[in-house]
Amino acid sequence: MNEFSYDNQKPVFPVLIGGCWQPASLSDTFRAFNPATAEKLPEVYPVSGWEDLEKALTESSKIKLQLASTSPDKIAGFLNLYADLLEKNEEAITEMAHLETALPLKSRLKSTEFPRMINQLRQAAAAVEERTWCQATIDTRLNIRAKYGPLGGTVVIFSPNNFPLAFNAVAGADLASAVATGNPVICKAHPGHPGTTRLLAEGLLRALEQSGLPASTVQLLYHFRNEDGFRLVSHPAVAAVAFTGSRAAGLKLKEAAERAGKLFYGELSSVNPVFFLPGILKQKAGELALEQFSSCSLGCGQFCTKPGLVIFINDDPGRRFLLKLQQIFNQPLSGYLLSPAVLENLKKAVERLKIAGAVLLAGGNQNGGTGIQFQTTLFAITGEQFLKDPVTFQLEAFGTLAVAVVVDDAEQMVRVAECLEGNLTASIYFSHSDEDEEIYRRLEPVVRLKVGRLLNNKMPTGVAVTPAMHHGGPYPATGHPGFTSVGFPAAFLRFTARHCYDNVPEEHLPEELRRKNPNGRMWRLVDGTWTQSDL
Amino acid sequence: MNEFSYDNQKPVFPVLIGGCWQPASLSDTFRAFNPATAEKLPEVYPVSGWEDLEKALTESSKIKLQLASTSPDKIAGFLNLYADLLEKNEEAITEMAHLETALPLKSRLKSTEFPRMINQLRQAAAAVEERTWCQATIDTRLNIRAKYGPLGGTVVIFSPNNFPLAFNAVAGADLASAVATGNPVICKAHPGHPGTTRLLAEGLLRALEQSGLPASTVQLLYHFRNEDGFRLVSHPAVAAVAFTGSRAAGLKLKEAAERAGKLFYGELSSVNPVFFLPGILKQKAGELALEQFSSCSLGCGQFCTKPGLVIFINDDPGRRFLLKLQQIFNQPLSGYLLSPAVLENLKKAVERLKIAGAVLLAGGNQNGGTGIQFQTTLFAITGEQFLKDPVTFQLEAFGTLAVAVVVDDAEQMVRVAECLEGNLTASIYFSHSDEDEEIYRRLEPVVRLKVGRLLNNKMPTGVAVTPAMHHGGPYPATGHPGFTSVGFPAAFLRFTARHCYDNVPEEHLPEELRRKNPNGRMWRLVDGTWTQSDL
Repeated sequence: MNEFSYDNQKPVFPVLIGGCWQPASLSDTFRAFNPATAEKLPEVYPVSGWEDLEKALTESSKIKLQLASTSPDKIAGFLNLYADLLEKNEEAITEMAHLETALPLKSRLKSTEFPRMINQLRQAAAAVEERTWCQATIDTRLNIRAKYGPLGGTVVIFSPNNFPLAFNAVAGADLASAVATGNPVICKAHPGHPGTTRLLAEGLLRALEQSGLPASTVQLLYHFRNEDGFRLVSHPAVAAVAFTGSRAAGLKLKEAAERAGKLFYGELSSVNPVFFLPGILKQKAGELALEQFSSCSLGCGQFCTKPGLVIFINDDPGRRFLLKLQQIFNQPLSGYLLSPAVLENLKKAVERLKIAGAVLLAGGNQNGGTGIQFQTTLFAITGEQFLKDPVTFQLEAFGTLAVAVVVDDAEQMVRVAECLEGNLTASIYFSHSDEDEEIYRRLEPVVRLKVGRLLNNKMPTGVAVTPAMHHGGPYPATGHPGFTSVGFPAAFLRFTARHCYDNVPEEHLPEELRRKNPNGRMWRLVDGTWTQSDL
Repeated sequence: MNEFSYDNQKPVFPVLIGGCWQPASLSDTFRAFNPATAEKLPEVYPVSGWEDLEKALTESSKIKLQLASTSPDKIAGFLNLYADLLEKNEEAITEMAHLETALPLKSRLKSTEFPRMINQLRQAAAAVEERTWCQATIDTRLNIRAKYGPLGGTVVIFSPNNFPLAFNAVAGADLASAVATGNPVICKAHPGHPGTTRLLAEGLLRALEQSGLPASTVQLLYHFRNEDGFRLVSHPAVAAVAFTGSRAAGLKLKEAAERAGKLFYGELSSVNPVFFLPGILKQKAGELALEQFSSCSLGCGQFCTKPGLVIFINDDPGRRFLLKLQQIFNQPLSGYLLSPAVLENLKKAVERLKIAGAVLLAGGNQNGGTGIQFQTTLFAITGEQFLKDPVTFQLEAFGTLAVAVVVDDAEQMVRVAECLEGNLTASIYFSHSDEDEEIYRRLEPVVRLKVGRLLNNKMPTGVAVTPAMHHGGPYPATGHPGFTSVGFPAAFLRFTARHCYDNVPEEHLPEELRRKNPNGRMWRLVDGTWTQSDL
């Protein structure tokens, strides 16, 4: 890693192409930013020119066949080894992530996000070894067999600002899913945490080398111009794009990719409505206000599952709940926003909500002091206001900001639900009173079709990595409500094609479709029965 | 069915909206066409104005919640009853289809396509009853559960010209899949067979009424303007579009739909390459030439799985094979093209191939006599020609037209495979000679990633309806290589969203995710094990 390019004498970090750290073809340079000091960090990273993207695409294409025929055990070996190597470098990685994002080192990065990243890589490895994910489906009478397999093109991953580790392009669930299914990957780091990404990618390259996977299996560019991004996602060598980020940027990439016939999986925006039914508020308005605040302010409100819309009825318990919310949101809370861009976006959201007539109940201003901080902010509107302008009142904004929608009655609550856009999650809090049950029965069918994950008496933050998890939802939460980006093996399926074998003899079949179950553990659907047996 | 609109005194057939046959809001009218006589049929059908589409969308939206909560048994009951009612009207339906398409009554419509349509409806019903399709995935420890469910919006189905029954918008696999999964449907008939569609829809409406499904579950428009089509597929009430037809029309709809965040499943085009390896041609060139011709000319070459590209090596057996192909393609064959548009497109394809330098070995001209007929046509090109202009030489054209690509050697054969676009199918014919096996090992990995269904020593026409079937493929064969339009329950998944339940108590769960297995037959993935047991 000693080949640098230079920008005004300053060394610029190299990019990872074709298994080598090599000087970038510079179109520009950039530096990361410490949100706690509001100062730029010293290291200089490249904004790649098209030459780098072209080179990476060429390298990807060269190895796609080799990768498609690589054994599951070898791929699983890579994922496990990668996790091991990262664990050995935990200290440096988490400290760099802390420096670049100002996310709390102990309570977040070390105790939660780093273990989650490691756990995801190992869960993906286990799913690859088991092989059930490919859904081998066999009709023995007609000798027709199908399973999911690699796409036959490169997967491009764009990572978000808010998870420097667990959703990092080079180490997160997208990376694990795309490699697990035998696809070459080109990663675009988030410019908010290039140093973290670099440290992860160093482990990645060693893991690739030591596990014997093609060295170009995963390549890394730190940044490139928007126009090169559009060119990349519509390139003939590309098969699919995974994007997590802002709706505006995501929709432009989506259009460019889909126009060229590429698959686009975008996690675009979500306000994660929480409905509090009257019975449960009667029981514990104070406790629930605290629960709402804790989830909303987690990670300084910079989670895609942040509960940003709170809906309840304008009765005594509802008003008590709102008052309690107001008190809690008015207490100072430390923590930094990830970047000046997040701050600007949050300010705009506050302005927009004010102009639209929302009443400011707490916060609303930038915090003084060093670092990028904003007050915890609460707005309130009536159900009628929401119904008149549902678009404005459900625009996502990162930061500890919530909009309380105080509705007249259960009927208006249902009408608010009907006006919701697609969301990743919705929560319904209820008691076992007859009244709550009655409202639940009317509300749930409407909410169910609007979201990916429906929670009962639980906040949406904290997305468990389990096969039953769904982190996705109807447009515009994502581009396809059938796919999840968290939870293996379901998340794998985004990067697969269905491969059917018709009248193909045993010796020409992939292992998963042969007479013998390849490992005795893989589940296969044989003539309508799920089984782990040989045929 | 006695409410007509009138166009110049002539009665115009009504459209099916909201469970009633009602006069269309006419933007124009049209008549079907008998390809055997090249004359228009007397019945007048409406080209709907936007008012009809708007009305249908409103009706769809009204019942989407009701449909989403309809029991699987009721939906299965509808599908079975629909099949029963159609069977009772087989005579009239197949005769009308014959009149409108000139497809052979006995050998095709009665003996193959009608039974296939009925069989599909019943297979879909059985899959709905079994419920395994929803892939219930349960994590008992974390109490997180997921399954596939309805989309929460309308599915729009556009049917193709070439299957008046089995892929008819109101009775084909798309319809069965969309209704099976609890989605309301708006169907656009193909203007080539409105009468057939009308007869089917009469059965449909009776089946809806008798089975107690909402009457607006399926609605039918015969035709509308292109601009209204774009408006329809991007309408807020729409969730997904299924289109089978030409690539040009499909891509325009795809763009309009995807831009608005809708799912688009298009079956767009495929030339279904067939590779004949030298060893098998040495054994039986004559027999294989006949097999190739039979598949290519089936349905007058108007199948999406027509094998239109034939690749083999320029050696002695290869040249014998080509000569044999030429002899067979030069024999006259009766049969009609579906419409003047198909004829025009075929003529253009012949011109394009000539201009591109392909050598005409058979046919190439319109047949004399009544009806829309074209000679069986064979072109030959070298591998080098193909590699220089792969786009031109793999454009799909309906009709008995094949392009023989005579390659220098195995290496060039592999390079031709590398230049293939995405296809529904590819076939490789081989003997068990060492030479063929060696070529197979080099060729197969390349071909595998280009197609949905890979066949060995078998022609691609004849798409069996089995869970292991895959009728799909990489772009531009379809818009998403992970989905199939034939084979239940896989075809269902196109019209589903993943629904997750997090911390939801038993009484708020759908039946499929509760403690008790709802029918004792449904397979569920519980803590990593596929089982039919209760929890």
